[in-house]
Amino acid sequence: MSLANLLYAQSGGVTATINASAAGVIEAARLVPDRIGRVFAARNGILGVLREELIDTGLERAEDIAALKHTPGGAFGSCRFKLKSLDQDRAHYERLVDVFRAHNIRYFLYNGGNDSADTTNKLSDIANGLGYELACIGVPKTIDNDLALTDVCPGFGSVAKYVAVSTREASLDVLSMAESSTKVFILEVMGRHAGWIAASAGLAGSQPGDPPHIILFPEVPFDEAKFLNAVKHAVENYGYCTVVVSEGVRDAEGRFLADVGTKDAFGHTQLGGIGPAIAAKVRAGLGYKFHWAVSDYLQRSARHIASQTDVDISVAVGAAAVEYALAGQHAVMPIVHRLADRPYRYEIVPAPLAKIANHERKLPADFLTADGFGITQAARDYLEPLIQGEAYPPYVDGLPDYVRLNNTLVDKRLPEYKV
Amino acid sequence: MSLANLLYAQSGGVTATINASAAGVIEAARLVPDRIGRVFAARNGILGVLREELIDTGLERAEDIAALKHTPGGAFGSCRFKLKSLDQDRAHYERLVDVFRAHNIRYFLYNGGNDSADTTNKLSDIANGLGYELACIGVPKTIDNDLALTDVCPGFGSVAKYVAVSTREASLDVLSMAESSTKVFILEVMGRHAGWIAASAGLAGSQPGDPPHIILFPEVPFDEAKFLNAVKHAVENYGYCTVVVSEGVRDAEGRFLADVGTKDAFGHTQLGGIGPAIAAKVRAGLGYKFHWAVSDYLQRSARHIASQTDVDISVAVGAAAVEYALAGQHAVMPIVHRLADRPYRYEIVPAPLAKIANHERKLPADFLTADGFGITQAARDYLEPLIQGEAYPPYVDGLPDYVRLNNTLVDKRLPEYKV
Repeated sequence: MSLANLLYAQSGGVTATINASAAGVIEAARLVPDRIGRVFAARNGILGVLREELIDTGLERAEDIAALKHTPGGAFGSCRFKLKSLDQDRAHYERLVDVFRAHNIRYFLYNGGNDSADTTNKLSDIANGLGYELACIGVPKTIDNDLALTDVCPGFGSVAKYVAVSTREASLDVLSMAESSTKVFILEVMGRHAGWIAASAGLAGSQPGDPPHIILFPEVPFDEAKFLNAVKHAVENYGYCTVVVSEGVRDAEGRFLADVGTKDAFGHTQLGGIGPAIAAKVRAGLGYKFHWAVSDYLQRSARHIASQTDVDISVAVGAAAVEYALAGQHAVMPIVHRLADRPYRYEIVPAPLAKIANHERKLPADFLTADGFGITQAARDYLEPLIQGEAYPPYVDGLPDYVRLNNTLVDKRLPEYKV
Repeated sequence: MSLANLLYAQSGGVTATINASAAGVIEAARLVPDRIGRVFAARNGILGVLREELIDTGLERAEDIAALKHTPGGAFGSCRFKLKSLDQDRAHYERLVDVFRAHNIRYFLYNGGNDSADTTNKLSDIANGLGYELACIGVPKTIDNDLALTDVCPGFGSVAKYVAVSTREASLDVLSMAESSTKVFILEVMGRHAGWIAASAGLAGSQPGDPPHIILFPEVPFDEAKFLNAVKHAVENYGYCTVVVSEGVRDAEGRFLADVGTKDAFGHTQLGGIGPAIAAKVRAGLGYKFHWAVSDYLQRSARHIASQTDVDISVAVGAAAVEYALAGQHAVMPIVHRLADRPYRYEIVPAPLAKIANHERKLPADFLTADGFGITQAARDYLEPLIQGEAYPPYVDGLPDYVRLNNTLVDKRLPEYKV
């Protein structure tokens, strides 16, 4: 009988370091040729598995796999495609097992967030029910940092670093011109349901008066009068005001501010931009000159300023997932268990997918200052270790030298399956 | 008689490297204590001179002055305040000379763009007319890269690098998810009248199909049908489309697509929000899922990814300005004269302010591809040298260690002057 093969797939929004996890998986698997036969990667995530579009990573050079550690995006393609319950999507789950069987895949490593943990867990159940021996292992990833149990989600530390650095830099710009020009600068960051990314902007300053002066969290209902007062206070006391706003900020009724039919500062219908919406409120309420930035994908692809700590963790969880699969574990995910803050020490340990799937970790209440506009020392103690170290990519001709893989598909063995 | 003193002032929008020019000036001046007495810096630019708010840079430590080379923003403060003609603003010009006389300032180094070159030139005239011996020297600076005569404007190379890096990174993100998620990504960049910054995004790709697929320049009237066709072509052929749009894009009638309706202190229309406007057109015309980013101040303060070439030039023009002042030159600006492309070689030479003031250098026609959506090899040959080298700042606790000066004001010697 031929050796068991391994399949790795990327899921959901990509990050600056998801490819580092891919490298961790592939390099670990290549170290045990007596245990693992071929290492496949799904093209465009779970959609590629359903379509039997499997990439043979064995055709990639070792140096290109290593280069994944410094390459953002999803090297094999990812997708937004959520499998529903076993009842609703049974055909899909069975198809997955058919594909695994056809290619003798006995290890499935799924790199994603909450939804992917759920899918991986269900897949483990159904393979078991069908009598197909399959190790389903989750590999954590999400810039939202909202997975349960783990100290941090791979990908988050790099966004946190990008947002903290950008907040510090743009604030120096605003400060130097505030007397006669822009007084209020608004930076919109990601985080639809939890304010982890917004919180990380708080690392930019450490003294009273340091930027950001106001952080707007999804966890704190937006109170316009209180917000405008805080802006006014900052401008009158520090000369300017830096506001970092999470895309997930809601009003007292729980509606996303970005979805409530407001128009932006320019009278354009809102397109999901909370930054310009907040700017419009500043102009209407206070009349200050403002600027706003929306970093959008820039923040989650900014591998050029990735956190070394984050890259190390991302590689480590990939390697650990292979280790767990070989050890016969099922339906687990390697997570980060913090041992110490300064210097940051951690261990990678397995956790049951069932305890991670569909849970969502919000910011602890004690991470927010009493006024709801800043972060506490507890938040700093948590966040600071995660942005340590600069994992610079190599440069050629002034630009980062990111790798592009060949991504050669293996021959199909099954009839076509429509997704 | 006491030694002649020097006054340095920052003007207009700050950059990631304007402080490097400040360091170039101050370090050069400190090397000749037998020629230059005190080195002042104006607080908040020319406003600070009018108000006699002069910072004594002699109180700053040498290591803090050196740290300016890696600190973005304007360390002494800048301003948007344009002096008009000698007839209209004669009182202001005479006040400036009064302040110079009161503090025995014989060297005035003004670090800015077109408007500042004009002010410096006029000031030279009036000081001369008043019989006050004053060397007025411009120090070039502008991310817009639109100053005449010089090969490049200090500050531009770093924005160019930031925009090219960000375009490459965000495009990898979009590419990896395009099949089931975002197909069109739009990045808005600065550049009110000239497309230099937008053009620099073109360095992100080099092969057909590489991003950015479309660049929208201020120099090319926006043609919606042609634009939508190009987006469709990219999505159908490459799976996704990256669009980089200059804030200064106009319609066929010359109107800014993103006119806010407010004007800044220079009478320039304040722009912003073209990114979401273009996104709305993509949605209405093609229905593709899109994302947009507006990097705004992030792009011009991103010292963390500054071009080493740009930093070197920024320091060099500061030092050259001191040299020219000491050599008895008047109304000149050190500019960059290119000697070779690869590797980039240049010399710093003086140019008359009169030939720089109020001129605006646009992108040469042969820098744009025939369809108006990309850059040519000529543009690459020009741009590539400017982004070479990574001038990383030092980091402490995961964040760039930017310096904050003490900025101690010297005692006033004149009556108050209202501005």
